[in-house]
Amino acid sequence: MTVRVRDGLRQEVLNANLAIPQVGLATLTWGNVSGVDREAGVFVIKPSGVPYEDLALDHLVTVRLSDGEVVDGDLRPSTDTETHRCLYLAFPSIGGVTHTHSTHAVAFAQARLEIPVLGTTHADTFNGPIPCTPDLTAEQCAKDYEYNTGRVIVDMLKEDDQKAVEVPAAMVAGHGPFTWGATARKSLEHAIICEAVADIALHTLALSPTAPPPPHLLNRHYTRKHGPDAYYGNPTPAPAG
Amino acid sequence: MTVRVRDGLRQEVLNANLAIPQVGLATLTWGNVSGVDREAGVFVIKPSGVPYEDLALDHLVTVRLSDGEVVDGDLRPSTDTETHRCLYLAFPSIGGVTHTHSTHAVAFAQARLEIPVLGTTHADTFNGPIPCTPDLTAEQCAKDYEYNTGRVIVDMLKEDDQKAVEVPAAMVAGHGPFTWGATARKSLEHAIICEAVADIALHTLALSPTAPPPPHLLNRHYTRKHGPDAYYGNPTPAPAG
Amino acid sequence: MTVRVRDGLRQEVLNANLAIPQVGLATLTWGNVSGVDREAGVFVIKPSGVPYEDLALDHLVTVRLSDGEVVDGDLRPSTDTETHRCLYLAFPSIGGVTHTHSTHAVAFAQARLEIPVLGTTHADTFNGPIPCTPDLTAEQCAKDYEYNTGRVIVDMLKEDDQKAVEVPAAMVAGHGPFTWGATARKSLEHAIICEAVADIALHTLALSPTAPPPPHLLNRHYTRKHGPDAYYGNPTPAPAG
Amino acid sequence: MTVRVRDGLRQEVLNANLAIPQVGLATLTWGNVSGVDREAGVFVIKPSGVPYEDLALDHLVTVRLSDGEVVDGDLRPSTDTETHRCLYLAFPSIGGVTHTHSTHAVAFAQARLEIPVLGTTHADTFNGPIPCTPDLTAEQCAKDYEYNTGRVIVDMLKEDDQKAVEVPAAMVAGHGPFTWGATARKSLEHAIICEAVADIALHTLALSPTAPPPPHLLNRHYTRKHGPDAYYGNPTPAPAG
Repeated sequence: MTVRVRDGLRQEVLNANLAIPQVGLATLTWGNVSGVDREAGVFVIKPSGVPYEDLALDHLVTVRLSDGEVVDGDLRPSTDTETHRCLYLAFPSIGGVTHTHSTHAVAFAQARLEIPVLGTTHADTFNGPIPCTPDLTAEQCAKDYEYNTGRVIVDMLKEDDQKAVEVPAAMVAGHGPFTWGATARKSLEHAIICEAVADIALHTLALSPTAPPPPHLLNRHYTRKHGPDAYYGNPTPAPAG
Repeated sequence: MTVRVRDGLRQEVLNANLAIPQVGLATLTWGNVSGVDREAGVFVIKPSGVPYEDLALDHLVTVRLSDGEVVDGDLRPSTDTETHRCLYLAFPSIGGVTHTHSTHAVAFAQARLEIPVLGTTHADTFNGPIPCTPDLTAEQCAKDYEYNTGRVIVDMLKEDDQKAVEVPAAMVAGHGPFTWGATARKSLEHAIICEAVADIALHTLALSPTAPPPPHLLNRHYTRKHGPDAYYGNPTPAPAG
Repeated sequence: MTVRVRDGLRQEVLNANLAIPQVGLATLTWGNVSGVDREAGVFVIKPSGVPYEDLALDHLVTVRLSDGEVVDGDLRPSTDTETHRCLYLAFPSIGGVTHTHSTHAVAFAQARLEIPVLGTTHADTFNGPIPCTPDLTAEQCAKDYEYNTGRVIVDMLKEDDQKAVEVPAAMVAGHGPFTWGATARKSLEHAIICEAVADIALHTLALSPTAPPPPHLLNRHYTRKHGPDAYYGNPTPAPAG
Repeated sequence: MTVRVRDGLRQEVLNANLAIPQVGLATLTWGNVSGVDREAGVFVIKPSGVPYEDLALDHLVTVRLSDGEVVDGDLRPSTDTETHRCLYLAFPSIGGVTHTHSTHAVAFAQARLEIPVLGTTHADTFNGPIPCTPDLTAEQCAKDYEYNTGRVIVDMLKEDDQKAVEVPAAMVAGHGPFTWGATARKSLEHAIICEAVADIALHTLALSPTAPPPPHLLNRHYTRKHGPDAYYGNPTPAPAG
């Protein structure tokens, strides 16, 4: 039995997955993006281990939010599917999730360090450091490992949806970044920015183990892009002519 | 009411903006270039948050120098527009301004360090270190933040137009580089060079916290490209045939 | 006299060699991939010093496993041919070998350090550190140098085929990485991953000379991709339609 | 009056110049390659400051070896022309010269450090460290600056042609790399390799300020590619078919 998802979701998820190698965040088949349809109670995700150059709409897999069962698709979903599901269940405002092994973000995850707020490039998107989870325990690795990978993120954020909105990214210790957003596309953008700020942060820390810039500067940048007083961006660009 | 700007300015500003991602200085929609028409008393700038792949001539916004009012264009101008305006007002010789979040230059801005003159690559373009402003105060962030972002640069240069000509770039602490030049295209070239010398400087400092090379070498390189005794370059290349 | 090799082997070896510059692992003509046909007792390898843009099926060289004689092809085989041969003879499960001078892996080889297991990106493919050989002796350099380059790898692994399967890569001290796999394509993938984990490891060590993550996490990642309980990937993706 | 140069020289010099941005060694118009015709007593070089995308055969400038006079071409030659001329005069075996501001090589030049021999990637091409000159004196900068830039290289090598053949590259302190070779194309290849080994060396030194690998290994690599016992490469690849 096939489950219908809302119009455009499958295409958006495909596009976001295909963008991963285009923006330089993927090695081989690494990385995956999903998008959720909360009304239908399912999310759509990349299949496991399929090369990006072969990936097509038909390959996407639809998974039920409540129990993780595949309800549409012939292929096995990404091994990280249960991590995505855990994040969707814990944070109702999340519409899409992205996971990559991007070089500089993974370096922070492997060093088990948060990515500190060192400037406005970070504060434009993330209202605080990108936190790093503690190590998973042997028990968390032995059973339901992928679900528990989401669980350590959820626990770190104390299941607080507002926190997840303000800092839409986390590092899993020894592993790498998971990012999310209102849509699959937004979760991908947060993965791109997470990697960019990790890259800049590594260079900054090499120059100077400096204190973060003043909070009033960081807060100004976050609020000019987010919340009721935001004044960045344009609704829809007028067509060229 | 539409304001006419001099022929070619809008196209030059569009081209310079489109070049930002091509030369690898942009992530997502970050970065913006403007160009001024001092006779008309306006400058033309990128709209806020429009993806580079969608950007068209029609989207550019014309802003009045004297008060920052939009006088042409349907979109909201870049959030950094007031910073550009402040620089145009303070430095009469500036014809174009570029702002990016390029990785290595931002690392210096986040470390709140000037980019020191470590060799002739730097001295070919910048007649001294690329300075870094002090942090903006809470007051400067609370009101007219973007204008004040230009103000801290202007204050650092003591409003000295000649200084702005000799070192056409500055770092805003905790934020990133602003560069300028006689034209929009020139301001973009200075952004490219600013990023290149920041990249090389980071590697140089990793090898050796060395003193700068002798002033006579640096001066020789600056003066062979600038001023009355310059002998670099060619007027216009003969057409291929 | 021409030796027939199994269908598809020459094309696979050509494709894997052509992929080296495409994935950014080659400078000029550096790097080479070979694939073996154990039934025919030969392997197929890139010729020495031919630019990738000129490389064609006709240029590949077929070499006899038992004695290293060229049995097919007009060109001289890669100077590293004897290293490949040594690895094929020592490890019966190897179907392909790749050698590159990729930047970050070579840095570890030049520092004569193993690439430590610092996270799941590494553990997904390599079940332990990527080891680095001792220096070759003057005798090993004077005679049969290239064969001895393989010999120091084989000796380091105590000629243990299972070890070679679990960690399909090694650094030759002062030289660079050799990787292998069930096929030529797989050996290339291991070269790509070896370079990626070396790159991430360099950044991780710059942030923190941290201890490796807990063994249960690493083991979980290795076993979900390898062995009887693996659950990563899909057999063959359904065609798009 | 036009001077004829040997067939193919102008095209080879054009191709080598156009390759500089293609291999990622150039920012803007930086970098230049020349090739010499010793029988005609001239060399052909890139004009000054012409963007690579506009560069055409017609723009190349022919310069007399004996006195540096332009004998063919409408444009001003590269500002570095006198440095090339000095190298051609001092080292009779040189057929081409390349100058770039490539990132990692310039970092060594700015740190005033030689690029040490840290592995076989270096020893395959350079039979020893790539040396760095002392600073130019105020007198050397004041008059005939560009010629003196070649002079400090020539003095450092004690005008020894054999040394120039064995290590076809040098760093000018505070400036950057000059490389040379039997042809313009070869000098470019040496610039590419010089940058690659500088990049790897920077990472190696970050991991470990290690001693160089044993001389017998380095010597083996140099001699398998150079001199009477060389066995690397192939004469001309058979055409595909």
